[in-house]
Amino acid sequence: MTARISRSNHSDQCLIAAIDLGSNSFHMIVARLDQGEIRPLERLGEKVQLAAGLDDDDYLSEEAQQRGLDCLRRFAQYTKHLEVGKVRVVGTNALRTAHNRDEFIKRAQEILSHPIDVISGREEARLIYLGVSHTQADDLGRRLVVDIGGGSTEFIIGQRFEPQLLESLHMGCVVYSQRFFQGGTITSRQFQEAYYAARLELLNIAAPYKEAGWEDVIGSSGTVKSIQNVLLAKGLTSTGITAEGMEELRKYIVSVGHIDKMMLEGLKPERVSIFPAGLAILMAVFDAFKVDRMCYSEGALREGLLYDMVGRLRHEDVRERTITALMKRYHVDRQHARRVARHALMCFDYVADQWHLEKEDRELLNWAALIHEIGLDISHTQFHKHGAYLVNHSDLLGFSKDYQQQLAALVRGHRRSFPLDLLAEFPPGLATRLKKLCMLLRLSIVLNHIRLDEVLPEYTVTAGPDWLKVSLGAGWLEQHPLTEADVEGEQKYFAKAGYQLIAE
Amino acid sequence: MTARISRSNHSDQCLIAAIDLGSNSFHMIVARLDQGEIRPLERLGEKVQLAAGLDDDDYLSEEAQQRGLDCLRRFAQYTKHLEVGKVRVVGTNALRTAHNRDEFIKRAQEILSHPIDVISGREEARLIYLGVSHTQADDLGRRLVVDIGGGSTEFIIGQRFEPQLLESLHMGCVVYSQRFFQGGTITSRQFQEAYYAARLELLNIAAPYKEAGWEDVIGSSGTVKSIQNVLLAKGLTSTGITAEGMEELRKYIVSVGHIDKMMLEGLKPERVSIFPAGLAILMAVFDAFKVDRMCYSEGALREGLLYDMVGRLRHEDVRERTITALMKRYHVDRQHARRVARHALMCFDYVADQWHLEKEDRELLNWAALIHEIGLDISHTQFHKHGAYLVNHSDLLGFSKDYQQQLAALVRGHRRSFPLDLLAEFPPGLATRLKKLCMLLRLSIVLNHIRLDEVLPEYTVTAGPDWLKVSLGAGWLEQHPLTEADVEGEQKYFAKAGYQLIAE
Repeated sequence: MTARISRSNHSDQCLIAAIDLGSNSFHMIVARLDQGEIRPLERLGEKVQLAAGLDDDDYLSEEAQQRGLDCLRRFAQYTKHLEVGKVRVVGTNALRTAHNRDEFIKRAQEILSHPIDVISGREEARLIYLGVSHTQADDLGRRLVVDIGGGSTEFIIGQRFEPQLLESLHMGCVVYSQRFFQGGTITSRQFQEAYYAARLELLNIAAPYKEAGWEDVIGSSGTVKSIQNVLLAKGLTSTGITAEGMEELRKYIVSVGHIDKMMLEGLKPERVSIFPAGLAILMAVFDAFKVDRMCYSEGALREGLLYDMVGRLRHEDVRERTITALMKRYHVDRQHARRVARHALMCFDYVADQWHLEKEDRELLNWAALIHEIGLDISHTQFHKHGAYLVNHSDLLGFSKDYQQQLAALVRGHRRSFPLDLLAEFPPGLATRLKKLCMLLRLSIVLNHIRLDEVLPEYTVTAGPDWLKVSLGAGWLEQHPLTEADVEGEQKYFAKAGYQLIAE
Repeated sequence: MTARISRSNHSDQCLIAAIDLGSNSFHMIVARLDQGEIRPLERLGEKVQLAAGLDDDDYLSEEAQQRGLDCLRRFAQYTKHLEVGKVRVVGTNALRTAHNRDEFIKRAQEILSHPIDVISGREEARLIYLGVSHTQADDLGRRLVVDIGGGSTEFIIGQRFEPQLLESLHMGCVVYSQRFFQGGTITSRQFQEAYYAARLELLNIAAPYKEAGWEDVIGSSGTVKSIQNVLLAKGLTSTGITAEGMEELRKYIVSVGHIDKMMLEGLKPERVSIFPAGLAILMAVFDAFKVDRMCYSEGALREGLLYDMVGRLRHEDVRERTITALMKRYHVDRQHARRVARHALMCFDYVADQWHLEKEDRELLNWAALIHEIGLDISHTQFHKHGAYLVNHSDLLGFSKDYQQQLAALVRGHRRSFPLDLLAEFPPGLATRLKKLCMLLRLSIVLNHIRLDEVLPEYTVTAGPDWLKVSLGAGWLEQHPLTEADVEGEQKYFAKAGYQLIAE
């Protein structure tokens, strides 16, 4: 099949792929982008059960990592021929949770030759909704979408292509199997414990969701699909999943008492062990939200990833909206932020070649400049630290967790001492790039510190291995002693970070 | 004078006092509260120069601590006769900065027999405005108030008794004297450096302040007072401070070149060494804000403290407004928060005697319950931690830094594992009280977890040294398995914290 794709008469430019490193299964979808339409070519899925490989301290076992890497070696046959930027790979709850995820991600990236993003639960929810909404009939009503995964379950209320409420709860069929159905026994008590654990999680979101309301309920991913298939095969429903049908299934599996004894037509062998936990969670969802009927939708996270990629290619980038929303929410002086961003990018363009900076670095710098002052909304004291905290911990739609950390490092480093300890936690090459971006951001802030009161001259910027130079024209700095004093302060901070700032 | 107060024919109930542990001087004001009017009886002030006792690593020297404690021994002659709750003592920038402030505060509290609060810069600004606005003619126009202290300078724009903008910048006459005028020499270059350092600080707030605008400019505290007095004595002004007058002073002090040679009528000996730094800062303020004339006001931080105390006695508590504003800002489900607070206080009232809890603990619990969910606005994941971060780092008007830490500990401890490490950082007695308050908050949350869906029975709560028991009535818990499951989860968390939670 590799051959079919790489030798196909469609140009590689038009092939895109999405890989979802889920807590239960890894999935890949390869599609052709044709006049803006996405036409799926291949779908692959393997049960990896990454979440089952997490030990009590949340470390991924070597065995589980190997299961994942073996699967990715097979996926890599497809993806290694695709251009960088045309393959998106995301990790979800098991990788959010694993303390040693960096180790796994490094090995996985080497195999795939494409970057892997670990995404937040809300970002996962956003992408799922994108996948579902693009594969559903374009209905005008409001929908509740539920996606039960291996380690987390996402809940979205949305209308057409717009999600309105996004949540992700820490419950999933793999994790609950381990917690409540160890060894494969299924007693009434075990089932009840799993059910109430899910009900308790759901209490956190039930009130606002019910208040928002919906007309249709849609489920996505394997758990919902397998429950619907079993109900159809048993003749317990003719369309969709019902509470009554599930209650029949519950009675049956409790009566047989063990997963090895379950005889369920329509249930794939690899889903047998996680079926009781998934059923308990879905029954809890039905009761918490008082759902009558849920229908399964083909679209899910990986389809959402494809649509998100196409959006970015078309400059409908959700990340722009996220940054704008952050600026608004934390009352940023937008005029000033835009001015700082504009000059930071001018400085960047002057030195990008000398400092070996890439297009992605420019984008990161731009976003950091736009939000560098958000921490002021918490307190003036140490506001660069508060800003970094907000960037690190908020669910920023469209961004991966790693990317948020880089963005936070720039916000943290925009004033006072360079955060050398923090930067040292990044891989060396990235740490150096982030430090350089900090310097460009700081230079722009110094040049714009006076905000509206002064008009800057035309200036040029040059750079060397350990220096950055801004040329403002003869005498300008002497005539602007406030900027001069500011530059002197920055020169001390630069020096402590091993760089020389020259202004003339 | 002690005699005069303690033997006065006014009852002690009517005496109140405020002490301001400033970075330059310590001040005390004792007043009589008469039909809601504050009538000052005594004002004492001593130059302690606490900020000058901070070493390079921001530790207060033993010598500086002794200067402060000696001063407080004198103040204590007045305050030890006053009731708890009738004396407010606050520390400002030098104590905000000192890493070993707890050591100093412990010793100072023993001397004074009254608690000491270290307050944030914005809280300081709020109190200064309160002091100034109550001692000014009740003007309808908008005012800019500037208070140059030893370690920080506060800027407030307000109208009548309402502050509208509050800021505190890290510059002050003691700190700038040490930084720019070491040894007492005064060169033109030194003065310029101090001036530009202040201008740079001011850039952070100049734009929003100028945009808000004002009609009158008022200065408070010693620096402004001494500059005005010197200008009056020299005949350089007939009313208030002007830029031209200060420029004359600058020329004069630079021409003599050393503080020992300055001959300035109207300047108190203890203010001579910090005069050049204060002048540089005030000149920067005039230029940054384009001020023509500033008048000195008697009211300042300590008067503000008195008015704040009277407000609390009259139940016009700014802290209520702060908590309400936090709930609104971070989109708290107010109905739920109020319900949790109401039940937390009910639980508190049942066990207050058994657990030796005080009225102040009840107040703390109430506020923690009202804001326990604010972290949800950042992210659902670990929202108890985000909430604690916001409480710890926001400028919460009306609260001291220490109090914010206690409030943050309760927010942090309202779900998941009890934060035992964090609690261990408090003094033992306080740590135990905070743990007990956490338990009451958690019990209330469990009882209200279902939000609107269920009606709770009447219940009673009892407590012992290591247990807390809620009695819900026979069979109620069995009939409400969701709450039962929730209680079971809490029982595990309580056990890890060394307590037993019993529900029946």
